Amino acid sequence: MKKSAIIVAAGSGTRMGAKTPKQFLNLHKKPILLHTIEAFTGIPEQISVILVLSPDYKDHWYEISRRFDFQHTITIADGGSSRFESVRNGLQKIESSDGVVAIHDGVRPLVSHKIISDSFELAHEKGSAIAAVPAKDSIRQIDGSSSITLDRTRIRLVQTPQTFKVSLIKDAYASASTGKGFTDDASVLEHYGAPIHLFDGSFENIKITTPDDLLFAEAILSRKK
Amino acid sequence: MKKSAIIVAAGSGTRMGAKTPKQFLNLHKKPILLHTIEAFTGIPEQISVILVLSPDYKDHWYEISRRFDFQHTITIADGGSSRFESVRNGLQKIESSDGVVAIHDGVRPLVSHKIISDSFELAHEKGSAIAAVPAKDSIRQIDGSSSITLDRTRIRLVQTPQTFKVSLIKDAYASASTGKGFTDDASVLEHYGAPIHLFDGSFENIKITTPDDLLFAEAILSRKK
Repeated sequence: MKKSAIIVAAGSGTRMGAKTPKQFLNLHKKPILLHTIEAFTGIPEQISVILVLSPDYKDHWYEISRRFDFQHTITIADGGSSRFESVRNGLQKIESSDGVVAIHDGVRPLVSHKIISDSFELAHEKGSAIAAVPAKDSIRQIDGSSSITLDRTRIRLVQTPQTFKVSLIKDAYASASTGKGFTDDASVLEHYGAPIHLFDGSFENIKITTPDDLLFAEAILSRKK
Repeated sequence: MKKSAIIVAAGSGTRMGAKTPKQFLNLHKKPILLHTIEAFTGIPEQISVILVLSPDYKDHWYEISRRFDFQHTITIADGGSSRFESVRNGLQKIESSDGVVAIHDGVRPLVSHKIISDSFELAHEKGSAIAAVPAKDSIRQIDGSSSITLDRTRIRLVQTPQTFKVSLIKDAYASASTGKGFTDDASVLEHYGAPIHLFDGSFENIKITTPDDLLFAEAILSRKK
């Protein structure tokens, strides 16, 4: 089974209050993005990595890869004006329609080897494999000026990797004329009409979007060392 | 405005892998529960605290309050066999129907002074005030063997405090013959038919239920000091 990973890191978001986009901030003295990429290059599986970057930050990445002596060959794709476009650009770099592809947030550096392996296995078997965790809190859905309780046991918080048969996710992206309203790849597949298979992610597999998230990631890594 | 707080700490849950229920585990060398109680007793507002404890752990609490020289007078209520029963027992300790009451998880020690004050103000004005935060992740709802995307912008993850006019929440609890299916107090009020007012909680105001949560809380407290 041919395995690829698209690491989506095209954002220039600076919700962190820093000037640097968050994927380039340091976590344990190494950029978050490098942790994320190494989660895929540092395991026994042979995985072709496609890194989606804003053209403005390509040089920044090359400097990081030199500074940290990153030796793996990866493919760079241009980020688009939305996550949808960025992933589509990444998919275009996969020439063969065989195999499976994991689409993963550049700012989820703590993804485990097990989650990556599980996602490839399950996507190979079922077509799709979406990492997700249960909701710990009660959940409400806003409805006009009020809100209603949702049954928490039926709610899942969706993470990445979101892994797919390459042919299936390429078809799904080709069928969506616009990326409007898609917050992730599972919703593109759902819109295409294909079944979504969830599997167990991990509460550690957080998306780093705020200074608190970075603090949490630092704490997890400190414990592991 | 008379202000009370019911701190719900009746669980004997040990999902943490420890023998001690999680509210008694140490966070920065002090039991989580004591941090939580002091969030309400350590601010300028005059708040009557009602602590709901399993009868089996009352002595444990008395020992903690001696050891840490906890000087405030609080009321103890017996925990029930469900969260619903525990809160109902706590409400019975409030004699007057005037005023407002904040119902708060014993394992949310990082609640801020601002959130507590906001919740009292808003509940006084609107009848209810439920701390909640937006969802950072995409959300799916399980539907049989499949699942569907929910509009993330309409989803809120519910925290505590959940603060109410005393008369309103007492009526809501009295009208619910059974606590089945209620995961929080807002859902009891919703079942009663009263409007639910959400306000901004905080991502720091976490519920400590796993070792990772404890690690995160330690990191937040270390940063603050």
